[in-house]
Amino acid sequence: MDSLDGIAGRRSVRRFGQEPVDDETVEKLLRAAMAAPSAGNQQPWRFVVVRDREVLRRLADASPYASMLPTAPVAIVVCGEPAVEKHVGFWVQDCSAATENLLLAAHALGLGAVWLGYYPVHERIAGASEALGLPDGIVPLCVVPVGHPKEEEKPAVDRYDATFVHRDRW
Amino acid sequence: MDSLDGIAGRRSVRRFGQEPVDDETVEKLLRAAMAAPSAGNQQPWRFVVVRDREVLRRLADASPYASMLPTAPVAIVVCGEPAVEKHVGFWVQDCSAATENLLLAAHALGLGAVWLGYYPVHERIAGASEALGLPDGIVPLCVVPVGHPKEEEKPAVDRYDATFVHRDRW
Repeated sequence: MDSLDGIAGRRSVRRFGQEPVDDETVEKLLRAAMAAPSAGNQQPWRFVVVRDREVLRRLADASPYASMLPTAPVAIVVCGEPAVEKHVGFWVQDCSAATENLLLAAHALGLGAVWLGYYPVHERIAGASEALGLPDGIVPLCVVPVGHPKEEEKPAVDRYDATFVHRDRW
Repeated sequence: MDSLDGIAGRRSVRRFGQEPVDDETVEKLLRAAMAAPSAGNQQPWRFVVVRDREVLRRLADASPYASMLPTAPVAIVVCGEPAVEKHVGFWVQDCSAATENLLLAAHALGLGAVWLGYYPVHERIAGASEALGLPDGIVPLCVVPVGHPKEEEKPAVDRYDATFVHRDRW
């Protein structure tokens, strides 16, 4: 898939078929995520690859927007470890860049995925941390279910808005 | 450029040649940025496209890592407008996804770029806000200088680290 087309054509997918997503594919997604830039190249991202149905159910229970999670063959939880930061306060940006790479890689591989936000909502963080047994200092940023899209492919939308663009000064 | 290759091959570029980057190209970059997902599709991103040398110098003065800014033909400042959020607290993630798309699009177009972090460092935010005349409520997240790479193309690096990956639970 062409790079610019992939960026333009990626859409959130929330309905998944039963076909599995193998470990080799998951590694491709993680490799894309870890290719993201990070402040001082500190790579503060950590990942939990979840296939266990019970863990997926508990992750779903932690957010009002995550009910599809147990229907996905696999979900990748993107976490941050703020303590490793040399440049304090950038881990959310770094892990978000990694998440966007993961979504684009899924799309390029013909898979569907959606970014389910957990951080900074306290109840979602607590629920996910409990479900995954996260140690202190590991913060779940988001959960990305991945699968073969069951829904019809959505057309690319053009979100370009010229009113969002200023020149030289605001 | 292939999507997965583009993700793997993108590197930070900090040295730029004198060739200009035209407005049509800048629009392609902005279009890629605005194709990012955002919480509740609220699109809290705003952009300032800076070509003015004096503004670039003032942006450079606001951060210890931005001295190359005045050597770039153009820089794009990615800002957030938190007040438009339906889901409070997600604007940094949304704008970071947009920034990663922008970097990937630059790479796909044969351009070089680098993510210069400003938020959440108080002095950098204040300096950039002053340089750009940002109104209250608009927060500069990062500045991305864009140009034709002057440096030799860096080889792709494989940052994949299996120790960052956990299965089902931490």
